Amino acid sequence: MNKGAQTREMILARTAPLFNRQGYFGASLADIMRVTGLEKGGIYNHFASKDDLALAAFEYSVGLQQQRFAEALAGKHNAAERLRAIVNVFQATIDNPAIAGGCPVLNTAIEADDTHPALRARARATMDEWHAMVERIVAKGTERGELRANIDPAAVATLLTATLEGAIMLSKLYDDTSYMLRAVQHLNWYIDSVLAQ
Amino acid sequence: MNKGAQTREMILARTAPLFNRQGYFGASLADIMRVTGLEKGGIYNHFASKDDLALAAFEYSVGLQQQRFAEALAGKHNAAERLRAIVNVFQATIDNPAIAGGCPVLNTAIEADDTHPALRARARATMDEWHAMVERIVAKGTERGELRANIDPAAVATLLTATLEGAIMLSKLYDDTSYMLRAVQHLNWYIDSVLAQ
Repeated sequence: MNKGAQTREMILARTAPLFNRQGYFGASLADIMRVTGLEKGGIYNHFASKDDLALAAFEYSVGLQQQRFAEALAGKHNAAERLRAIVNVFQATIDNPAIAGGCPVLNTAIEADDTHPALRARARATMDEWHAMVERIVAKGTERGELRANIDPAAVATLLTATLEGAIMLSKLYDDTSYMLRAVQHLNWYIDSVLAQ
Repeated sequence: MNKGAQTREMILARTAPLFNRQGYFGASLADIMRVTGLEKGGIYNHFASKDDLALAAFEYSVGLQQQRFAEALAGKHNAAERLRAIVNVFQATIDNPAIAGGCPVLNTAIEADDTHPALRARARATMDEWHAMVERIVAKGTERGELRANIDPAAVATLLTATLEGAIMLSKLYDDTSYMLRAVQHLNWYIDSVLAQ
């Protein structure tokens, strides 16, 4: 990486947790200058605007989260085992998040849904990919007879995401992992006792 | 109500949806002046600061949401029926919210968890009340034999809140009720087939 690319990477690595913790509107230019140690000009050398930086920082955060999914799924072939691996990745968001501040998609979805169409579009696109990943696992599991027939892949994807994102919200609100643990217990029971055969 | 109390009430009624849609950091003083039609002095006559107004607007939003719960539970005595009534109130947040912008507790929890201790404390206190309400329903239902024995009331409260708040996030992100409908279907099945006896 040349110097310019290194600086760009440093800006993303330092502002991604800032945006994830404080939000797009809550992170000021002063905050961005403080965490990067750069002047305004040094930042706008690499990003056209705060919007441009926020979108790139969101993609950076999502990339770290995707790596977690890829690592967790590697070498796992059974559909129930793969679904439980996804549940585990979400669980880690509490004690060992890929990016400080919790789930970037949840945070961005809540902040941007009524206020920022471009960020909202990115959050949707990422959520689409997550849902497609879960749906492929379920469809393949049904095809192979690992999961019961007549399971709606979209329903499983919604249930996993809704329950786990809601549990992240609760565990972060209370600073208490027990909310996440209860959600994980329910979903693992659901995967093993209702979906698997 | 005297004129001062009426003005205070008008400010809350107009800023509660503003804060709920745009967030605490996303709602500027200019926005607050625009939606209330008041000058800065007219607002700070009634509220000591933006913080003071935001906290009061949060309580106002929560009050509207609590009314929905009270109405939905009135006249329902069976525990499973009461739990389904709570699920219905959350479902209405998509098409007919008590306050524009979705669930005020979800929005405030996500925005304030890393940034605003006073708002976070209010979100926790409200969530505590919701969980206590669900836990009382479950405990009474078990006592009366309407629900199975050995059900953990806290686990049911977490599961309902996490799944429904996560579903609100998804349905608002996509502007599509089907995410909420899938969550509701799962929870009603869970209440009727796993909890009830």
